[in-house]
Amino acid sequence: MATRTVDLNADLGESFGVWQLGDDDAMLSIVTSANVACGFHAGDAATLARTCRLAAERGVQIGAQVSYRDLAGFGRRFIDMPPEDLTADVIYQIGALSALAAAAGSTVSYVKPHGALYNSVVSHRDQARAVIAAVHTVNPALPVLGLAGSVLFTEAEELGVRTVPEAFADRAYRPDGALVSRRERNAVLHDPDEIAERVISMVTRGRVDAVDGSTIPITVKSVCVHGDSPGAVQIATAVRGRLEAEGVALNAFS
Amino acid sequence: MATRTVDLNADLGESFGVWQLGDDDAMLSIVTSANVACGFHAGDAATLARTCRLAAERGVQIGAQVSYRDLAGFGRRFIDMPPEDLTADVIYQIGALSALAAAAGSTVSYVKPHGALYNSVVSHRDQARAVIAAVHTVNPALPVLGLAGSVLFTEAEELGVRTVPEAFADRAYRPDGALVSRRERNAVLHDPDEIAERVISMVTRGRVDAVDGSTIPITVKSVCVHGDSPGAVQIATAVRGRLEAEGVALNAFS
Amino acid sequence: MATRTVDLNADLGESFGVWQLGDDDAMLSIVTSANVACGFHAGDAATLARTCRLAAERGVQIGAQVSYRDLAGFGRRFIDMPPEDLTADVIYQIGALSALAAAAGSTVSYVKPHGALYNSVVSHRDQARAVIAAVHTVNPALPVLGLAGSVLFTEAEELGVRTVPEAFADRAYRPDGALVSRRERNAVLHDPDEIAERVISMVTRGRVDAVDGSTIPITVKSVCVHGDSPGAVQIATAVRGRLEAEGVALNAFS
Amino acid sequence: MATRTVDLNADLGESFGVWQLGDDDAMLSIVTSANVACGFHAGDAATLARTCRLAAERGVQIGAQVSYRDLAGFGRRFIDMPPEDLTADVIYQIGALSALAAAAGSTVSYVKPHGALYNSVVSHRDQARAVIAAVHTVNPALPVLGLAGSVLFTEAEELGVRTVPEAFADRAYRPDGALVSRRERNAVLHDPDEIAERVISMVTRGRVDAVDGSTIPITVKSVCVHGDSPGAVQIATAVRGRLEAEGVALNAFS
Repeated sequence: MATRTVDLNADLGESFGVWQLGDDDAMLSIVTSANVACGFHAGDAATLARTCRLAAERGVQIGAQVSYRDLAGFGRRFIDMPPEDLTADVIYQIGALSALAAAAGSTVSYVKPHGALYNSVVSHRDQARAVIAAVHTVNPALPVLGLAGSVLFTEAEELGVRTVPEAFADRAYRPDGALVSRRERNAVLHDPDEIAERVISMVTRGRVDAVDGSTIPITVKSVCVHGDSPGAVQIATAVRGRLEAEGVALNAFS
Repeated sequence: MATRTVDLNADLGESFGVWQLGDDDAMLSIVTSANVACGFHAGDAATLARTCRLAAERGVQIGAQVSYRDLAGFGRRFIDMPPEDLTADVIYQIGALSALAAAAGSTVSYVKPHGALYNSVVSHRDQARAVIAAVHTVNPALPVLGLAGSVLFTEAEELGVRTVPEAFADRAYRPDGALVSRRERNAVLHDPDEIAERVISMVTRGRVDAVDGSTIPITVKSVCVHGDSPGAVQIATAVRGRLEAEGVALNAFS
Repeated sequence: MATRTVDLNADLGESFGVWQLGDDDAMLSIVTSANVACGFHAGDAATLARTCRLAAERGVQIGAQVSYRDLAGFGRRFIDMPPEDLTADVIYQIGALSALAAAAGSTVSYVKPHGALYNSVVSHRDQARAVIAAVHTVNPALPVLGLAGSVLFTEAEELGVRTVPEAFADRAYRPDGALVSRRERNAVLHDPDEIAERVISMVTRGRVDAVDGSTIPITVKSVCVHGDSPGAVQIATAVRGRLEAEGVALNAFS
Repeated sequence: MATRTVDLNADLGESFGVWQLGDDDAMLSIVTSANVACGFHAGDAATLARTCRLAAERGVQIGAQVSYRDLAGFGRRFIDMPPEDLTADVIYQIGALSALAAAAGSTVSYVKPHGALYNSVVSHRDQARAVIAAVHTVNPALPVLGLAGSVLFTEAEELGVRTVPEAFADRAYRPDGALVSRRERNAVLHDPDEIAERVISMVTRGRVDAVDGSTIPITVKSVCVHGDSPGAVQIATAVRGRLEAEGVALNAFS
């Protein structure tokens, strides 16, 4: 088997003030890329500063996890906002996190939309274009992490913004390659060994079993593991362990 | 009389969403420095983007007007927050505005605390130090605009951060050089001609009349005119006109 | 012509902190019902308290103008939120305003959704049901002010919640009775006399001219005039004047 | 020993959106009064609705835990705000929670200031008066839960608002009866048995040991146990168990 390399990313910096979410410390010893919140769905500035410092210390690359402005909904609710306002919001967020990353001796190396914005830009052309316009404005060399086949990627390619396709370690896929909606049963996998095995298939064979039993092709440069679910650290550890056992190198994509 | 030069600054970008405040367009044809809000006391990202674009077009230098997180109070209420949180909040704000300024082809050239934070750092050592730590972390060459004699300036000098002393065109001064509190009568002047005349005295003679009738020395590298009061544009126009009539050059301090 | 009676409503209490919107004082001398914001799209508590006091003094009935939680978007952006969360948000808002209305010696007499929520509940069954569930929970006798033919009204009728149909003084209507979208030209009328004349037709003849030149039937128990547009006071004055000239009594619907 | 009765209160409803804080379900089987957040320092409306329903089911009385508007600081940062704004904010919060409590078939039975506001109204006369004005306006029969000897209580007594003095189960006291600041070591006790023993002394003997070893008198109608600290449930259980073992009846004070 040829030596392969892959990135492992997780959402971090998602505490807010007194409220803690996820175990950033543990996850930053496992992943190679940290999608750090930017304050719009989570992450007060002091939290973000701490997460950036930890990431920098561990050599984990930092990405800006940009979101709708929605603390009460954790960025998980679609907001039908004008594209030009979305572009400004995304630039604002990347800039804010960039300063905190720089203060930690690191830098923002990529952008990943969060939650409902992530889902929206799979198919909502105006919002996808608005996000890409923001990324391109801040730095045309900044890649976006997202779903292969999304409108986000189409828009990115039109502007020459680099795209990095990711797969979800613990999510079920439909035969057409889309994710099974979280509103359906079986949308999320929970068994660490099963999840790790799936990731091996995705990364080394470019294939994953869909919910209907068929096997579908998948392109993966980065694998997303969740940072906030119960058992998150255990799952991420299992995934990393299996990848290393298979001789897959874990490296940030940038 | 020797030719003199001075900067003219005003608070701008202080609208929020549907709510308009001040006449940024008019003021940006008068001032040489724009203290642009950073979203914590005012300024949604789309507003800030527009203000930065206008400032860039007119060659007006952009400063980050950093604040406590307090939209409901417009940053005018002292918040007794831990210094390390304040430092993170200030870095976040400078970074956010920097990205929007860069998108407009400009840059953040200085930092000025807003409202209650401005007043706090005159004497509150921990908060002053927290602000200067943030500025120094972002860029040690970034000057702070503020009050001569403030603890903010003492802390800045200790870290080698450049200070730019400003005077207020329309505020009454006490004999000790401090501002008369807004809670007192006569704290604010309203007559454009009287205000313009005071500015001439400050800038060309380094002197201003205090409320007790005495004349006190004042060091001025920048004059602050208000951007949001009724008559703001008229006052700013009068000040600029008188300065030009006296042969004082109006230039950004950076 | 038979003597008729109608209610005149406007959105009020939509300032926030330092930011002023609309002329509540003037409008409260014209309208008979005040749709007072509840803090989610506009209206800090001190503003709401003042508006309630003014309304109580003038004998203007107070309604709770409930909204999505969205200060930055002024409640004008659809938010795809779970119905049970929306119900809780609406109860929270009605309760908050009720306490301020009671402090002013008045009471909340009806509920009207604001902005994007108003538009959503015309056709979005889950959100309409969520709003009606909230209203019914707070007080089954509380009427909702909205659009005849909307899903909001269907859901209200199912639960026995009273509905009060309103017409918009300054908005163009489509032949099917729906409003012309604000994104289209000619969606909003501006001439006070023309607007006043339309209102007379709506109220006394139950008819209004649609954009295609046809005349359509319309049921009106209340006429909505805008409180925040330029010329709002002038238009509202013209509408009230014409109604009185035609012998139509202006009375709150409750 | 004479049979005694006491109330047991804890801060609840302090989650916000996706962020969980404390174990409301467990605590509501232990305490007799729930200080439910009102959305300003914690508590989105859906969270508050759930906490009110649970409290109502268990027969636990509901109090409005009012706060400064400060989600990022969890209401733990003093805000120097005008009294009239504070009064409006407190009325708003009591009203909002009242509607949610009513929806749960219960009612708001008392008011307790939270965090920095709790500390402020011990000595800050203007803010204490502002809070009492709000409580009195909403319902003159609504008691306030707080610290004996505080300015809050003085102001309450002047307006005829009933006061309910509480003691803190796990906090160290100074010889003058004030709490040892959280910034000092030993401000908080952690051993459940020691805490339970202290509560017995406070409730049955009206005495507590101060940090200097002296024994001081204390008046207790309610004992505050924390709902959000590690071990909170264990401590609350120990306190309740010891009180019952001593024959002290646990009953809400209203």
